Amino acid sequence: MNYNELTPAQAKEEYARTLAEFEAIKAKGLKLNMARGKPSKQQLDLVSDILTVLADPADCVSDGIDARNYGELCGLPCARRYFADVLGCKPEQVFAGGSASLTLMYDLVAKGMTHGLKNSPRPWAQETGLKWLCPAPGYDRHFKITQSFGFELVTVPMTAEGPDMDAVERLVRDPKVKGIWTVPKYSNPDGVIYSAETVRRFAALRPAAPDFALVWDNAYGIHEFEGDYVPFPDILAECEKYGNADMVYEFASTSKITLPGAGISCMACSEANMAYLTALMGVQLISFDKVNQLRHVLYLKDKAHTLELMKQHAAIMGPKFRLVVDVLNREIAPRGLATWHEPKGGYFVSVNVRPGCAKRTWELCREAGVVMTDAGAAFPYGRDPQDSNLRVAPSLPPLEELEQAMAVFCVCLRLAALEQLV
Amino acid sequence: MNYNELTPAQAKEEYARTLAEFEAIKAKGLKLNMARGKPSKQQLDLVSDILTVLADPADCVSDGIDARNYGELCGLPCARRYFADVLGCKPEQVFAGGSASLTLMYDLVAKGMTHGLKNSPRPWAQETGLKWLCPAPGYDRHFKITQSFGFELVTVPMTAEGPDMDAVERLVRDPKVKGIWTVPKYSNPDGVIYSAETVRRFAALRPAAPDFALVWDNAYGIHEFEGDYVPFPDILAECEKYGNADMVYEFASTSKITLPGAGISCMACSEANMAYLTALMGVQLISFDKVNQLRHVLYLKDKAHTLELMKQHAAIMGPKFRLVVDVLNREIAPRGLATWHEPKGGYFVSVNVRPGCAKRTWELCREAGVVMTDAGAAFPYGRDPQDSNLRVAPSLPPLEELEQAMAVFCVCLRLAALEQLV
Repeated sequence: MNYNELTPAQAKEEYARTLAEFEAIKAKGLKLNMARGKPSKQQLDLVSDILTVLADPADCVSDGIDARNYGELCGLPCARRYFADVLGCKPEQVFAGGSASLTLMYDLVAKGMTHGLKNSPRPWAQETGLKWLCPAPGYDRHFKITQSFGFELVTVPMTAEGPDMDAVERLVRDPKVKGIWTVPKYSNPDGVIYSAETVRRFAALRPAAPDFALVWDNAYGIHEFEGDYVPFPDILAECEKYGNADMVYEFASTSKITLPGAGISCMACSEANMAYLTALMGVQLISFDKVNQLRHVLYLKDKAHTLELMKQHAAIMGPKFRLVVDVLNREIAPRGLATWHEPKGGYFVSVNVRPGCAKRTWELCREAGVVMTDAGAAFPYGRDPQDSNLRVAPSLPPLEELEQAMAVFCVCLRLAALEQLV
Repeated sequence: MNYNELTPAQAKEEYARTLAEFEAIKAKGLKLNMARGKPSKQQLDLVSDILTVLADPADCVSDGIDARNYGELCGLPCARRYFADVLGCKPEQVFAGGSASLTLMYDLVAKGMTHGLKNSPRPWAQETGLKWLCPAPGYDRHFKITQSFGFELVTVPMTAEGPDMDAVERLVRDPKVKGIWTVPKYSNPDGVIYSAETVRRFAALRPAAPDFALVWDNAYGIHEFEGDYVPFPDILAECEKYGNADMVYEFASTSKITLPGAGISCMACSEANMAYLTALMGVQLISFDKVNQLRHVLYLKDKAHTLELMKQHAAIMGPKFRLVVDVLNREIAPRGLATWHEPKGGYFVSVNVRPGCAKRTWELCREAGVVMTDAGAAFPYGRDPQDSNLRVAPSLPPLEELEQAMAVFCVCLRLAALEQLV
C-alpha cells in the first residue's frame, strides 16, 4: 500500500491503525539509542589485547626513543609510518596526535583564526564575512567548528559521487570562502565514496583564497562492513599533481578501529604545511601521548594487519546494516515513504523521508523511547531546508535492540507521514 | 679566593689556570644535558605497573561508564575526584584532560582570543595593545604562549615570597592587562613557594579587566624532594572568598608523577567558568583519553597514595639537588661568583651569576659538551636584562654524569667571570 496513492478514507483508516501500533509500542517503555556512531561493546572487546601490549620499560622504546618521556612533537616515528601506510602518503607528511582527530581539525581552524594558515595574508580573525563550504547532509561536528568561529556556512548539495563539484568550483571563486569540510569515503551520513572524478576535481580546484583549506576527513577510510577493502587515492599526492600541495589537510584516527575514547589520530599535509604548523604547535604542546601511539603501532602493526581487524568489525557491523536496510525495504519502500543509500562502509544510513516529516518522526521516536540523531543535524546550523533527512546510527545497540528500534522508527515514520496526509 | 677582590695580576693568573682547566675538560668530548626538567629513566621505571593496571574490559568501567567509548567531555568522574583531592578543590571544578596541561593553558588563551573568556566584553582578537604579566625569572613555555598570540609581555620581578605583589597590584589597574602566569609552588626556575600573604593578595586582586585570568600553574604542587609535603592553600576557595571566583584557572598534571609523555592533566576553575568553557570545548572534542585517566586513578588511587610515590621520586631527585647545591657551595660561593636558591621541591636551581656573564657561561658550557637551558630563557622574549640568570635542570642525568656536568658548569662560570675581569 503506497501511501502516496491512498484515498482520504484509506489514509484515515491507516492512520488509526498506525496510531494504535504507536501507542502499543509507547506502552512498552523502551529505551533504545541510534543517535551517534558509537561502536558497540562487542567491537571494543575485540581489541582488549591492546591494553597490555606494553608491559615493561623495555617495551616503551621505539627507534631509540623512550615513548614515556618528553619530546617528539610530531609523534613517534613508528606512528607516523603507520598512518602513512594506512593513508598511502609519506611519513614526513604525518603528524601523529592524541585521541581525537576532531581536536586536530578544530585546532587547524583555530590557528587559521589566530595566526593564519601557511599562505594566509593575515589571521582570519582580522577578516570579515568569511565563509566555509559544508556538503550536506554532512557531519554536524564539522559544521559546528566553523560555526563556532563565526564563518557563514554555505551548503553544497551531496550527490551519489560526492559533493556537487559544479557548485564547489563556482563557490571557491569567492575569496571569502576559506575552506570545505569533506568525508571522502563512506561520507557521514550518506555512506557515499567520492568518485575518482570528484577526487580529481577537488585536487585541481582553483580557489580564489590563497589559504583555502580542503579538510579531508578520512574518518572511514578502511571501514568496510560489506565486501573487501576499496582502494582510494592518496589526496596529498593528487593535490600535489595539480600544484595544490598546500591546499589539503587530511585527518584520520583509530577511534573506530581500536577504542573511541582512547585511540590515536593524525593530520597529514604537505611538508611545507607541516613546518609551518609545527612551529605554531610547538608553543601548544611538547607532544601528544606517545605511549598510546606505541601501544597502537605494536597492536595494529600495519595497514594489512589492521584490515584483518576491520574484517572482525565487519562481522559485527555488517548484520546490523543489513537489518536496517532489510527493515526499510520491507516496511518503508512499499509504502513509498522514503529513500536511502545502501552503504558498504562507514557508520550511518541516511534516510530521506517526505519533506516536512523528519522532525516529527524524530519527536515520535523520542516519545516511543528511541533516541535518534537530531533531525536537521546533518545540515548547517542544524536546519534541514526540506525537513526530510534522518540519520540512522545502528552501531551501538545489539542486534535484538536494533531490530526493536528499527520497528519503532518505521511506525513513527509512517505515523508522521499519515499525520500529513489526513 | 673571592674573584671580586682579585688584583689584576691575580686575575690574570687565575684566568690562565681556569682556561687550562677548561681546555682539559673540552678535550674529554663530553655530552651531557641539564637543559630541561625531564625526569630520569629511573623515575619512569618507578611507575611501570601503570602500564598493565587495566588488563581486560571489566577493568575499563568506572562509575558505570565504559572509559573505552565516546563521551564524558569533562573527563571520568573518578579522574575529576582524583585531581580535586590533590588540589583541595571540588570535583565539579575539575576538567580532566589529556597528556599535557600546557595544551589546556594554550587553549584557554586561544579561546580568550577567538571567543573571549566568561566575562570578556569581546574576543581578545578584537582588542589591541593587550598585555600579559610574566613574573621573571619564569617558565619560558608560558611566556611563549602569550607571545605567540601577540600580547605584550610585561616583566614582574620575582622575590623570595613570589612575584612582587606591589608591582602586580599596580599593573592590573591597566585594563589592557588580561592575565598573569604563575607557578605558585616551587616556582620555575627559582623553586620559591609563594607565601600565604602573596596567595592572599593574588586572591584579592582588583584587576581593571573584567576578564583578567590568574593562571595558576600548580605544576609542582606535590613535588617535594626534601622533607615532608608542604600544605598549600586551594586558590579556588581563596579567590571565591574575595569575590574573585571566576578570575582563576588552576592547572596540574601527572607529567612528573607518572610519565611525562603520557600522563593526565587538569584545569580547575569555578563552576560558572566550567559551564562557559565546556560549551566551547564541546565543539573541539568529545573527550580526552579516558582510558588513560582510569589507568592513572587506579594506579595513583588518591593524594595520600600519590605522596608515597613522590617520596620515591624524592629519593632519586634529592641527591641530585644536594649535589648541585654542594658543588655550588664549594666551587662558586667562596669565589663570590653567583647566588642561588636552595629549593626543597620542583625541578630547577636558578643561579644568578655576575651581570653580563650568563650567555657567555652558557656558550662555554656548550663548547665543553654540556647543554644548559638557553641563557635568558626564563625571561620574556628570552631577554634577560642583566644577562645574569642560568637555570640548572639536574633531573635527567644520572648522578655521576650530573657531577661531571656541574664541574664543567663551575669552570665555565669561573672562566666567563674572569674574561670580564681581565
